[in-house]
Amino acid sequence: MTSLTLINRATCIFNTLIKLPATKQLVPFFPAYHQHYSVSSKQVSAKMATEKTLPEIFKYVDQNKDSYKQLLKEAVAIPSVSCDVKYRADCIRMVHWMQDKLKEVGATTELRDVGFQTIDGKDVQLPPVLVGVLGNDPKKNTVCIYGHLDVQPALKSDGWETEPFELVERNEKLYGRGSTDDKGPVLGWLHTINAYKGTGAELPVNLKFIFECMEESGSEGLDSLLMDKLKPEGFFDSVDYVCISDNYWLGTTKPCITYGLRGISYYFLEVECAKMDLHSGVYGGTVHEAMSDLIYLMNTLVDKDGKILVTDIYKSVAPLTETETKLYTTIDFDPEAYRKTIGAYKLAHNGVKEQLLMHRWRYPSLSLHGIEGAAFQPGAKTVVPGKVIGKFSVRLVPNQEPEEVEKLVFDYINKKWAERGSPNKMSITAQSGRAWTENPDHPHYQAAARATKLIYQTDPDMSREGGSIPVTITLQEASGKNVLLLPMGAGDDMAHSQNEKINVRNYIEGIKLFAAYLFEVGKLPK
Amino acid sequence: MTSLTLINRATCIFNTLIKLPATKQLVPFFPAYHQHYSVSSKQVSAKMATEKTLPEIFKYVDQNKDSYKQLLKEAVAIPSVSCDVKYRADCIRMVHWMQDKLKEVGATTELRDVGFQTIDGKDVQLPPVLVGVLGNDPKKNTVCIYGHLDVQPALKSDGWETEPFELVERNEKLYGRGSTDDKGPVLGWLHTINAYKGTGAELPVNLKFIFECMEESGSEGLDSLLMDKLKPEGFFDSVDYVCISDNYWLGTTKPCITYGLRGISYYFLEVECAKMDLHSGVYGGTVHEAMSDLIYLMNTLVDKDGKILVTDIYKSVAPLTETETKLYTTIDFDPEAYRKTIGAYKLAHNGVKEQLLMHRWRYPSLSLHGIEGAAFQPGAKTVVPGKVIGKFSVRLVPNQEPEEVEKLVFDYINKKWAERGSPNKMSITAQSGRAWTENPDHPHYQAAARATKLIYQTDPDMSREGGSIPVTITLQEASGKNVLLLPMGAGDDMAHSQNEKINVRNYIEGIKLFAAYLFEVGKLPK
Repeated sequence: MTSLTLINRATCIFNTLIKLPATKQLVPFFPAYHQHYSVSSKQVSAKMATEKTLPEIFKYVDQNKDSYKQLLKEAVAIPSVSCDVKYRADCIRMVHWMQDKLKEVGATTELRDVGFQTIDGKDVQLPPVLVGVLGNDPKKNTVCIYGHLDVQPALKSDGWETEPFELVERNEKLYGRGSTDDKGPVLGWLHTINAYKGTGAELPVNLKFIFECMEESGSEGLDSLLMDKLKPEGFFDSVDYVCISDNYWLGTTKPCITYGLRGISYYFLEVECAKMDLHSGVYGGTVHEAMSDLIYLMNTLVDKDGKILVTDIYKSVAPLTETETKLYTTIDFDPEAYRKTIGAYKLAHNGVKEQLLMHRWRYPSLSLHGIEGAAFQPGAKTVVPGKVIGKFSVRLVPNQEPEEVEKLVFDYINKKWAERGSPNKMSITAQSGRAWTENPDHPHYQAAARATKLIYQTDPDMSREGGSIPVTITLQEASGKNVLLLPMGAGDDMAHSQNEKINVRNYIEGIKLFAAYLFEVGKLPK
Repeated sequence: MTSLTLINRATCIFNTLIKLPATKQLVPFFPAYHQHYSVSSKQVSAKMATEKTLPEIFKYVDQNKDSYKQLLKEAVAIPSVSCDVKYRADCIRMVHWMQDKLKEVGATTELRDVGFQTIDGKDVQLPPVLVGVLGNDPKKNTVCIYGHLDVQPALKSDGWETEPFELVERNEKLYGRGSTDDKGPVLGWLHTINAYKGTGAELPVNLKFIFECMEESGSEGLDSLLMDKLKPEGFFDSVDYVCISDNYWLGTTKPCITYGLRGISYYFLEVECAKMDLHSGVYGGTVHEAMSDLIYLMNTLVDKDGKILVTDIYKSVAPLTETETKLYTTIDFDPEAYRKTIGAYKLAHNGVKEQLLMHRWRYPSLSLHGIEGAAFQPGAKTVVPGKVIGKFSVRLVPNQEPEEVEKLVFDYINKKWAERGSPNKMSITAQSGRAWTENPDHPHYQAAARATKLIYQTDPDMSREGGSIPVTITLQEASGKNVLLLPMGAGDDMAHSQNEKINVRNYIEGIKLFAAYLFEVGKLPK
């Protein structure tokens, strides 16, 4: 371990430097790590990884399964919900927790302040972004890894069968909020390093880490950190490849590698009719109610088949080519299994496979998420809300530009509002992130495909994703390098919904996949 | 005090009998009560109240202002929210708390079990109904008093300036959930008895009490208790008049007596598209979303001016007579002050006084309350809800029958659902209570008017109310006697909304009003 050189190299990257006390490396976090740190001789004579070392690493991963689950349990227990400020302290705690773990595997880390967000006119501190470096051998390729430590909200009363923030194993599945999105994969990288070190093998690449805790809330502050600070500071100069594990297989059995994501444009549509909520008996019939105005506006956005009604919104969508059309036919995807998993009565587009895939990946979709300020509890609350905020979002695709889509939506809503002719007050705001696609024929993708085949004995599908990870495109721009999405979880993991889980198989084989991926990338020409 | 006879009389009324230990009366709850209980001689030689005694009683009320506020503070501190089962234990606690208070003023009490309610297929125990009796002098009139101890939900985050369940006094106003709806008025009756006893005056009437804790949630179980148990048991045989204090003045300065209420028909409109919530990125574009179906249906119910679009719903509304039309012109109501109080931009019906009053009192209104199961938190939750329940209600007026209105709404929704042609699952259920009107020329109303004039030196308006107290009509049927609504609070008390309050003046003068009312009713021919 050339930690000293690493720290020296670090000085020119980081404004502040957190020197790793040697003792820290000798105070291991859990048994698996203890095992390798105690074998300090191996650290000194760390041997270059060869094809032969991978089986050793895989064996080591299997041996340390339980401690890897244990660490995920601890991470899930921290309710790092980023969209609700009352969990902000937990988000910050989560980042510090992960920083300790990175230090334990020998990384140099730093917490970067990204300022405040404004909520109801108040400034609220954003969680810091965790930036790390491990290794700086000029002969090796350098991989920059991104992941997020925050999660979507979850309450047992939403319909969870277990406590959302308590990792529970049932039938080879690990249930808990964040298990698959994205704490499991983030820890996967940690365990991969642990496994290399545990077997005394030298890492085949240099690693850089960017772990944030606001991804589920528009990654506030991250873009400017990457573009205005880390880039000018030279953080990306040595980066050769970027890898993100924050999405899922298409189905439940066949792995995939992802080269495209939809963007998102999230809207807050506010209507106000009074300065307070009103008793519907005492005031009903005498006010123009904000709810009926909001419901009217929300009803103008999308039809029952999911067709977006916003004028011209499909205009800039990239035209479908023959080559692209062919891609969808070969992909392994079972609409009926998909329908059953979510318990839908009937899928859109009559459940035609190619159409479903295209509408998940290459066409925009609009979803109505809910209403803030209205009655949401069980029971018969008889209130006329004074102010309501409708929430909806559009998933963006190439070549839709967020600014363009926002303008179309604003113009459309303003037009509908004028038609409504209500005396109430209406306003609309948006948060957006662009769509992203990459070239799947790039050697980086081929390396990941070889690694995947080694672990799962099958060629992965080259897929796109309906979800959005806005930072992907920023990382592509900041590094100017090829970005790859390497999913760990399965298609039925239910990220964002009740009973989110990751299969024990995906979690453990995923660690091996990451190890094989780093090995394959290590072999790519510098 | 003829408590022994009272207890004997009680045996024939109650299934179970809670004998009041003499010591209990000597263990007073707070100073004010202590004062009179300690003067036990007065209890023995309690003198019949005369015009002269009223000023003494009023003086006593003023002297004990602080202890009356203190008791309201304790009542407000119990979050007896009936629509949310997680507060059920508090509802039950609230009823027991009130039972103790009634015992302290010498009433014989009983908690009547009204069974269970079914929520998500589970049976949940309903809070018991508190039934009480105080006095059974055959020469006196008997007044049956109804009130409710439960409240609407309230969170500081809803926009309260103070903790909702902490009574706070600011500028002669007492802020807190339930302060005016309906804990303040219920305690008002308690304090009235306390004041009579405190001055050693005999109560001019016999009293019967019915205090429930499910009024804000459709008074579940109460109707069958009244009609199938209390009525057959003879509870109402001796009742001459029924009085309810659970509504408000029309404005903020002039008192009123209320002879009419709107009914309510509350609807739960459920649409399900999947057995769980879904990630809008991963699934958006492939499912028929429940939210867009629900928003579509909710948008068909009412127009921007509040006109209900349900076919034939206005058909059975009682035609407007010339005599009735005249009534509205004389009533003291300032639309502009009303608009300012709630901070509305523009009132419905162009703010015309008579139209506003008619649409509060004698025409039905439909309000959209909210959506259960959708995103309601602040922030950008990107979920496609699997199952959503839209909440809306229609305020019913003479001569609309709930069954008839429910059928019209069900038929209309089913028709709109068929037009929608969605593959999702839709269902609709309702809870309803009929509208009520009484004859305001009845001697009972004249007695209340005299009492009001004595306290506020002005003739009260004879008014109707837009709100609903379904039990009113049941009490009218069960007793066969004249029912009167005697409001304690002011028109700007904001029941059901943020910063609910009761003016100190309304609370304290209200106790005097109740005392004068009992005195006036005591003088009515038996």
